[in-house]
Amino acid sequence: MSVKAESINFDVAQYMQGVGVRARAAARAMSRADSGKKDAALTAIAAAIEAAAETLRAENAKDLEAGRKQGLDAALLDRLELNDERIAAMAGGLREIALLPDPVGSISDMKFRPSGIQVGRMRVPLGVIGIIYESRPNVTADAAGLCMKAGNAAILRGGSEALHSNQAIARCIHAGLAEAGLPADAVQVIETTDRAAVGELIRMQEYVDVIVPRGGKGLIERISAEARVPVIKHLHGVCHTYIDDQADLDKAIRVAFNAKTQRYGTCNTMETLLVAQGIAATVLPPLAAQYQAVGVELRGCERTRAILPAINAATEADWDEEYLAPILAIRVVDDLAAAIEHIAVHGSDHTDAIITESLTRAQRFLREVDSSSVMVNASSRFADGFEYGLGAEIGISTDKLHARGPVGLEGLTTLKYIVVGDGHIRT
Amino acid sequence: MSVKAESINFDVAQYMQGVGVRARAAARAMSRADSGKKDAALTAIAAAIEAAAETLRAENAKDLEAGRKQGLDAALLDRLELNDERIAAMAGGLREIALLPDPVGSISDMKFRPSGIQVGRMRVPLGVIGIIYESRPNVTADAAGLCMKAGNAAILRGGSEALHSNQAIARCIHAGLAEAGLPADAVQVIETTDRAAVGELIRMQEYVDVIVPRGGKGLIERISAEARVPVIKHLHGVCHTYIDDQADLDKAIRVAFNAKTQRYGTCNTMETLLVAQGIAATVLPPLAAQYQAVGVELRGCERTRAILPAINAATEADWDEEYLAPILAIRVVDDLAAAIEHIAVHGSDHTDAIITESLTRAQRFLREVDSSSVMVNASSRFADGFEYGLGAEIGISTDKLHARGPVGLEGLTTLKYIVVGDGHIRT
Repeated sequence: MSVKAESINFDVAQYMQGVGVRARAAARAMSRADSGKKDAALTAIAAAIEAAAETLRAENAKDLEAGRKQGLDAALLDRLELNDERIAAMAGGLREIALLPDPVGSISDMKFRPSGIQVGRMRVPLGVIGIIYESRPNVTADAAGLCMKAGNAAILRGGSEALHSNQAIARCIHAGLAEAGLPADAVQVIETTDRAAVGELIRMQEYVDVIVPRGGKGLIERISAEARVPVIKHLHGVCHTYIDDQADLDKAIRVAFNAKTQRYGTCNTMETLLVAQGIAATVLPPLAAQYQAVGVELRGCERTRAILPAINAATEADWDEEYLAPILAIRVVDDLAAAIEHIAVHGSDHTDAIITESLTRAQRFLREVDSSSVMVNASSRFADGFEYGLGAEIGISTDKLHARGPVGLEGLTTLKYIVVGDGHIRT
Repeated sequence: MSVKAESINFDVAQYMQGVGVRARAAARAMSRADSGKKDAALTAIAAAIEAAAETLRAENAKDLEAGRKQGLDAALLDRLELNDERIAAMAGGLREIALLPDPVGSISDMKFRPSGIQVGRMRVPLGVIGIIYESRPNVTADAAGLCMKAGNAAILRGGSEALHSNQAIARCIHAGLAEAGLPADAVQVIETTDRAAVGELIRMQEYVDVIVPRGGKGLIERISAEARVPVIKHLHGVCHTYIDDQADLDKAIRVAFNAKTQRYGTCNTMETLLVAQGIAATVLPPLAAQYQAVGVELRGCERTRAILPAINAATEADWDEEYLAPILAIRVVDDLAAAIEHIAVHGSDHTDAIITESLTRAQRFLREVDSSSVMVNASSRFADGFEYGLGAEIGISTDKLHARGPVGLEGLTTLKYIVVGDGHIRT
């Protein structure tokens, strides 16, 4: 296959139609492929990636050089880079996916009904999954692996800055699929950098069953606004930790410190700390000292600043801000009800935690906070597919339909009803 | 409340915004309401409907008279009518919903992870559900009951021809909600017949979590094309029965006859009969005689007409047709693979059945046919929320995300992750 972007008279709509038709056909083959075959393909792809390490680095070097010439910033260039460690991690990730149980075909809840029929549900692939992502080329292997294992066909659209890297990884994927006797079209990596390809992909309802965008808020908002295909997404993470006045002081400080500082740039990092009035004067001074020792800027409400007079004042806008940086908004609230209300108004349905020793309050928080992950006495940083035991994740959803929270293999499948009778008719 | 449609300077966008804001607030209250309170409301609404039977009939008479003046056809007028039997059925349906187990708050799969945290999932309401439906006023009570029981707020938009009936039912619903101490805004029945209200409803992403359209294909296509809120729907039902050459002859005839003739106008009625070449000459003549005895028009492929020369020829268009009438398309196919292929090309992902005594073929059909209900040796007419044991259904979904097949209480809820630690942090 050649890189189609450079040819003259290239018709992107026609190209994407072809991609869609081939994906739909491959999806049927993948839905029938037994687990052994899918796992063989995953293992073969891992081996192909390892064997092609030199080529991958060389193709990646072209992307890096082009990126430097285009003036990409250091963070972006870092995400774009494929070094030996990252190549090994891609191969390792695929072998881990091969070891996960196959969700497809499992039958649950078979029950006899009064009519005599047996009714249950079978887990089946979604079909064709479109993934749209930015600079990291390793997503090409990770996303392909998860989609394949769940019996789907994947259409992958990576960032234009990673085109050579992604195409090189695609060749490894196709080699592995061929080795296992599965269709190459089970994983198609879009060959054009034409942005119109994304517009086509997210509107091909007859060929694509779901879109998973991975990237910045801007990308995801654009895709959500224009898509006709259903989208599994999360826009941003304004995560809260609420320290209840019945919290254990040590646990509160440990968890609240970790939730903010373990990593700053992740969507499950705490952005706003809520503290109950009754414990604020006790917990805030030692916690603030820890934050300040590692350079976290604190922005407090009036009641917070009555306890920590040296910190900056928070504005209304701070309660809605995803800093992704060493900045923390702090608000003292009257009680649990006020904390729940704050989260309902300012939260992003991502991950919110309470620190309390009170069973009643923990239960109320778990029930009433309507976020994709709700936690008690634990750091919001745990909101992650690996930490939850999903094995791997294709993304995190803050939507309500289909999948909430980290989305793993199960989120790439669906349930159909199955009915078994013995000549039963309805009367 | 007054019927807003008739006032001058009525701003439908502003009105719907108000409905949305109130629904969102009510949804939070409903999500916290305990089962006893919700059941008390359902029972109180049932009693209010029975007590208001006379008023309901009188308001319904206004709609019927207006409908007659407008020249609505007999079938539509029949669907519109609220007689004593239907009023009793509405009340009975609500009492049945009260008896169903409450899905909200149930916790599943709590597991310890190597990090020490416990991770599981809690079933929670979807939030605000918009239902758009046509003439039958009983949907107002049924849909309100299901949404309430699942802890949601509902915004109901019935057909303009049923406005008086729906408003009268709404008054019973509000009386029951008030009696149980639940907010009246938990169920709002749109008071305007302005069509722009639907346009607003399906685009209010911040206030509405899902739309369930119930009605003809035209209504559902229009809503799907314009909605920004996710839609749970089925467009149409082109259901198949495949008689395998290893079928039991008696079962095959019994099931295929029932699937077509038990009711003609329902979405789970068989529209195309597929017959394996090897059994066609045996099964088609006696089956055709039964169909013809009750006046079913048969349209066959060439191989069918070689066996049944007197019947009409099927055209290509017949394979995609939802007749909803005493017409049946019949196609003789080579084998199971050809049947599965025909269903993949012409089916509507609704309900498809195989008649066979072969375990291997039954298993293959169950696995490979990608429809919301797949059946073995049973009539497609069983595809129904009551028959499946869901208690009641808000609709049938042929979409793949979130809910497939009959959608009951569970389909009006979602799962969030819950995490319980003891001061656990991520390292």
